[in-house]
Amino acid sequence: MVNMHPQLQELKKLLHEIDDLGSAGSLLSWDQTTYMPPGGAAARGRQLATLTKLAHEKFTAPVIGKLLAAARAENEDEDALLRVTRRDYERAIKIPVAFAAQLSEHQSQTYELWTKARPANDFASVRPALEKTLDLSRQLADFFPGYNHIADPLIDAADYGMKAATIRQVFGELRAQLVPIVKAITAQPVADESCLRQHFPEAAQLAFGQLVIRQFGFDFQRGRQDKTHHPFMTKFSLGDVRITTRVKENDLGEALFSTLHEAGHALYEQGIDPGYEGTPLAGGTSAGVHESQSRTWENLVGRSRAFWEFFYPQLQATFPTQLKPVPLATFYRAINKVERSLIRTDADEVTYNLHVMLRFDFELQLLEGKLAVKDLPDAWHARYESDLGLRAPDDRDGVLQDVHWYGGIIGGVFQGYTLGNILSAQFFEAAPHDIAGGNFKALHDWLRENIYRHGRKFTADELLQRATGQPMTIEPYVRYLRKKYGELYRL
Amino acid sequence: MVNMHPQLQELKKLLHEIDDLGSAGSLLSWDQTTYMPPGGAAARGRQLATLTKLAHEKFTAPVIGKLLAAARAENEDEDALLRVTRRDYERAIKIPVAFAAQLSEHQSQTYELWTKARPANDFASVRPALEKTLDLSRQLADFFPGYNHIADPLIDAADYGMKAATIRQVFGELRAQLVPIVKAITAQPVADESCLRQHFPEAAQLAFGQLVIRQFGFDFQRGRQDKTHHPFMTKFSLGDVRITTRVKENDLGEALFSTLHEAGHALYEQGIDPGYEGTPLAGGTSAGVHESQSRTWENLVGRSRAFWEFFYPQLQATFPTQLKPVPLATFYRAINKVERSLIRTDADEVTYNLHVMLRFDFELQLLEGKLAVKDLPDAWHARYESDLGLRAPDDRDGVLQDVHWYGGIIGGVFQGYTLGNILSAQFFEAAPHDIAGGNFKALHDWLRENIYRHGRKFTADELLQRATGQPMTIEPYVRYLRKKYGELYRL
Repeated sequence: MVNMHPQLQELKKLLHEIDDLGSAGSLLSWDQTTYMPPGGAAARGRQLATLTKLAHEKFTAPVIGKLLAAARAENEDEDALLRVTRRDYERAIKIPVAFAAQLSEHQSQTYELWTKARPANDFASVRPALEKTLDLSRQLADFFPGYNHIADPLIDAADYGMKAATIRQVFGELRAQLVPIVKAITAQPVADESCLRQHFPEAAQLAFGQLVIRQFGFDFQRGRQDKTHHPFMTKFSLGDVRITTRVKENDLGEALFSTLHEAGHALYEQGIDPGYEGTPLAGGTSAGVHESQSRTWENLVGRSRAFWEFFYPQLQATFPTQLKPVPLATFYRAINKVERSLIRTDADEVTYNLHVMLRFDFELQLLEGKLAVKDLPDAWHARYESDLGLRAPDDRDGVLQDVHWYGGIIGGVFQGYTLGNILSAQFFEAAPHDIAGGNFKALHDWLRENIYRHGRKFTADELLQRATGQPMTIEPYVRYLRKKYGELYRL
Repeated sequence: MVNMHPQLQELKKLLHEIDDLGSAGSLLSWDQTTYMPPGGAAARGRQLATLTKLAHEKFTAPVIGKLLAAARAENEDEDALLRVTRRDYERAIKIPVAFAAQLSEHQSQTYELWTKARPANDFASVRPALEKTLDLSRQLADFFPGYNHIADPLIDAADYGMKAATIRQVFGELRAQLVPIVKAITAQPVADESCLRQHFPEAAQLAFGQLVIRQFGFDFQRGRQDKTHHPFMTKFSLGDVRITTRVKENDLGEALFSTLHEAGHALYEQGIDPGYEGTPLAGGTSAGVHESQSRTWENLVGRSRAFWEFFYPQLQATFPTQLKPVPLATFYRAINKVERSLIRTDADEVTYNLHVMLRFDFELQLLEGKLAVKDLPDAWHARYESDLGLRAPDDRDGVLQDVHWYGGIIGGVFQGYTLGNILSAQFFEAAPHDIAGGNFKALHDWLRENIYRHGRKFTADELLQRATGQPMTIEPYVRYLRKKYGELYRL
C-alpha cells in the first residue's frame, strides 16, 4: 500500500465499499434460501433490490471512471485489477441504475413464485413473471448494441469472450461425439442402483460428505455447509465461502455429489489470493472455469474408481447394514449409471450435456423471438422426446425443474455447464491427477497454483493456455468419457 | 398512498432504502453471532461499517432535511412518522459520517476480541479496545453539547426523555426498597435448585421452549430461533423477527428463560402495525419499554405459579425421569430461588436490579473520568463485594461477563434493564393478567393494543399514561416483589 499510486488507492477503497454491498446482498440471498421464515420474503426482495441499486450506483458513479483513467499500476496484480475493473465498469455504465434495481426485485419475486409453482406443477402461475424476465433479458442485451447474436452480451457477462456462434459450433461437435456413445450404452441393460436407494439417515450423510470435502482441502474455518432447496455456493469474503446441499434419505447420491460439486466451486474461491480481497479480482474468472472445478471434484475425482477404492470402506463403515453386502464394483457402476432421464441435476456425465444443450438452444430461441414463453412447456416436452426419448409427466419435472430462469435472466445461463465439462477434462489431464490413497494434495496444489489463486486476473482462455498450452478443445473430455465408460460398458 | 403528500411519499421511499441498509446490517450481525465461520470476521467488520456509514450518509443527506421540512401529514400516523423521523434526523446530523463508520468497525473488532478474551479470562487483551470504546462514547456524547451529565445524550438515545439524574433518583428509591428484601430472604436457607441441574438433552429443551412461545403468540411464520453465545432478538422486517438462545444441558433454566425473554422482545416487534414497515416507526419505543416486555413474558408470566400450574405437567412429560419425582412446589421455588450471585443474566428477579445499578454507576463514573478502564476489573470486584457480598474468582465472571460494552458503547446501555422491570409491573397491573389454563390471549391482545402496535408512535411516558393513567413509578414493581417473594419466603 505504501507505494501504491494514490488514485489506485482511492479506487480500491471505493471498490471495497461496493464489494461490501455485494457481499451483504449475497448474505441476504443465502439467508433467503436457507433460514428465512416465509414472512420475510416481501421485505427481502426490496432489501436485495436496494443493495443491488446502491452497488450499481456507486460502481457507475463518474468518480470511478475518473479514478480508472488516472490510476497507474505498479505491478502485474495492480495492472490486472485496473484491466478487469475497467472491463466491468464499461459494461456496468451501459446498464441504467433503475433497470438494475427493477431486475433484482423482479428476480426475487419470480424466485418466490417459482418455489410455490414447482411443487404445485403450476407453470401458469409463474408464466407472466417469466415473460417479464425474457423482456428484461432482451432489454439487458440491447444495452450492448453491435452484437452478432442477442445472446452474446449475456453470454459474455458469464463467459467472457464467448459468443453464441462459437458455442453452437463446439456444442455441435460434442453432440456428434456424445450421441453414438449414449446410443451404445443405452442399448445395454441399465445399471442397478438399488444400493443407493436404501434408507440413509440425514446426519450421517452430511457427516460423510463433510469428511470427504475436508480431505479435498475445503477449509471449515473459512466456510460452512447448510441445507437448502437448490444447492449452491456463495461467498461473503475470501474467509467465508459457503456451500449448501439438500438431503434425500432414500437417495445416497443426492447430498453427496451435490456436496462434492459445490465444494469444488468453494475450493476455487477459498484458493484466491487473499491480496485480491474486496476487489473485482476476487472471484472466478468465468462460469465455465468455475463449473470446470465443481465438475472436477464431483466427477473426475468423486465418481472415479481410485476415489472409491479409498473411500468406499469408510462409506461402508458409516452405513454398514446398507452397504456391507454391496461390492465396490456394484457401487461404482451404480454411481456411474448412464440412462436417458428427465432431470438435469440428476443426469449422468454422459447424457448431462444433452440436457444443457437443449436449454442453451431454448435460451437462443426465446431471445430471438422464435419461441414464446407460453409455448415453452410444450417445446420442452417435445425436445426431451426427440433428444432423450422421454416425456416428463408434468411441468414440475419439465420446464419448472431448474431455478435459473426463475431467479435470474434468460440467456448466458446454461452454456457454462457444458463448457465446464470440456474445460475440466483439459485442466485435469494437465494436472497431477493420481489421487490413489485419498491423496488430493498434488491435484489441489496444482489447481490452486494454476487456476484458483489467480481469481479473475487471467481470462478463461489465458488460464487454459498458461496451464495446458492449448486453447479450448473437446478432445480430452471425449477421451475421458470414452475411456471411463468404455471400460464400464465394454464398448 | 393515493392521498399522501408528495414530499412525504418521496421521504418514505428514501426511508425505506435506509431501512433496507439497516436490515441488511442486522442480518450481517445475526449471522456473525450464529453461523459465520471464524475466517469471516475481518471482512464482516468492514462490511458492517460500510452499511452503517452508507445508512448514516443517506439519512443525514440534505434532501432528508428538505423533505422533512416540506412534508405534510394527513393523519395521525403520518404525523407520528414525521415527528419521530425529525427527532432521529436532528440527532443523526450531529454525528459525522466518518465517526459512525469508525464506531461501527471498532465495535465489530472489539466484539471479536471479547469472544476470545472472556473464555481466556484475559481482560488485558481487550482493554485497549475498551479504552477506545470509552473515548468514542465520550466523543459521541460531545456531539450533543448542553447536557447536564455526559451520559444524558447516550441515555436519551436508548430511553428517550430520560436523564442520568432522574435515573439515579429512581434507582436510589428502588434500591432502598430492595436491600431489606434481599437481606430478609438471604437470611433464610437457599432454595434447592438441584431439580434444574440434571441432564436435559438440548433438542427437547429447545422444543419445549418453542412450544411455550408458540402458545404466547410468537409467530414462526414470521420468525425463528437459532443458537448463539449471548441470546438476543433481532428484526429484518416486521415479517422476519428472530430470537436466539443458548442451551446448557445441565441447567434447565438457561435456554428456557432466555427463550421466554427474547420471545417477549419479539412479540413486541411482531405486533407492530404492518403499515409502519420500513420506517422509523417500526421499532420499540425505548429500551425500557422493550425490556418491560421481555421481562413480562420471562418473569411476570414465565416464573409465575399460574404459568407452571398449566405447563409443569407438560414439562414433566418432556423430561419424565428427571421431573416426575419433583413436586410443582419444589420446581416453583427452584426457578424463583433468590441468592446473591455473580452473573447478571443468571440473577433472580430480586437481586437482578443490584447488578444493573452497579453497571449503571460504572458507566457514569467511566464517562465522568472518575474511573479508568484499567481500574475497572478491581472496581468491579470491590463493588460486587460491597453490594452483593461476593467476589468473582476471575474477570471472566467479573468485568468480562456482559457483551454490551464490548459490542457497543459505554453509557445508556444498562439503565433500560431496571427501567424495564419497573415498567413491566406497571403495564402488567393494568392489563388482564389472569393466565390460568395457559390462556395468554387476553394479556397478549391488551399488550398489542396498548403497546406493541404503536411502535415508536408514542414515547414511553405517553404509552404509560395512555395505558395506565400514571407516570413511571416503582410502586407496582415493589408491590409485585413483596407479594410474590413474601409468599415464597413467608416474610
